[in-house]
Amino acid sequence: MKNRVITISREFGSGGRTIGKQAAEKLNIPCYDKELIQTIAAESGFHADYIEEAGEYAPGGFLSSALSHRGLAPTNEDRIWEIQCRVIAHLAEQGPCVIVGRCADYILRDKADCLRVFIHAGLEFRARRIVEVYGQREQSPIQRLKDKDKRRAAYHRFYTDMKWGHAQNYDLTLNSGTLGIDKCVQIITQLYKR
Amino acid sequence: MKNRVITISREFGSGGRTIGKQAAEKLNIPCYDKELIQTIAAESGFHADYIEEAGEYAPGGFLSSALSHRGLAPTNEDRIWEIQCRVIAHLAEQGPCVIVGRCADYILRDKADCLRVFIHAGLEFRARRIVEVYGQREQSPIQRLKDKDKRRAAYHRFYTDMKWGHAQNYDLTLNSGTLGIDKCVQIITQLYKR
Repeated sequence: MKNRVITISREFGSGGRTIGKQAAEKLNIPCYDKELIQTIAAESGFHADYIEEAGEYAPGGFLSSALSHRGLAPTNEDRIWEIQCRVIAHLAEQGPCVIVGRCADYILRDKADCLRVFIHAGLEFRARRIVEVYGQREQSPIQRLKDKDKRRAAYHRFYTDMKWGHAQNYDLTLNSGTLGIDKCVQIITQLYKR
Repeated sequence: MKNRVITISREFGSGGRTIGKQAAEKLNIPCYDKELIQTIAAESGFHADYIEEAGEYAPGGFLSSALSHRGLAPTNEDRIWEIQCRVIAHLAEQGPCVIVGRCADYILRDKADCLRVFIHAGLEFRARRIVEVYGQREQSPIQRLKDKDKRRAAYHRFYTDMKWGHAQNYDLTLNSGTLGIDKCVQIITQLYKR
């Protein structure tokens, strides 16, 4: 029987990671997020910072990749993607868990019994949150969010051919800004238990 | 204070109407769906069947409307849209309620305290359901679904300029096919109560 896994895709600053961790704690199952990056780093030989960054870029961007016949030579991002698929599939085989980000919903589509969640929130809610959590940066919070959203959407589209944030790709999507983090955790844990 | 209203957008055959009705019953508040069409019919003088149909068409289609300078002369659909906006705003003023379809989420965006829900499900689940609920037709169920989906998306986009089914437009979206109708009702009523 396939293991039951919660996959959480999320907009930057929406609290998806926090929601994943809290749901996992309540359900007493592991939550993979940063740990995933460490494992992929160890297996690939790339630095963890690079892995984290590469998880948000479509390799080379759409234009350059269209011009370069990229299919002929796999990029670093392609190699990381392959390892990432293997690591995530392996984790899902070990037992029930929560996996945050990294297209786990797509990677596990035939390999686990997934509850596929997408967490999002309005720009203002997320802007406040990223300043609280990550501090001020030179770039304005709104600009950081728009930049990250665009990269994540492009990355997701590139590797999965699915539209990021399109309701039909998920079992449920939640607006953490209007519903609140606690309610999101509560709904997810409740649905997981069935 | 603004009234608390549940708006339910839904893919054809996903059970959104059933979910709306059941949630309203549990919360002991009215649910407007077919009643809405009757009221708009009465106010506009158009036949109810025509109102129902017009609620899924972008007037004249995108191409012909782009070519015809439609802004100069409102179409029947435009007139129905105006009455619809008035009827829905009026209902939301009367008290808490559930409103199914007809872009109520958009119409009430500044007029009510809305819980904005989108219900969807996979094609197979919906195909089975529409045959059970509406019976067989000449057109195959899958073709009927694709046709309806396309019309509703175009209508929604035309009048609201929002992408139908895009998670970011809702507080929550639920896959009734994977979660089940009962769970959807349960989550909505629970969130409504806060």
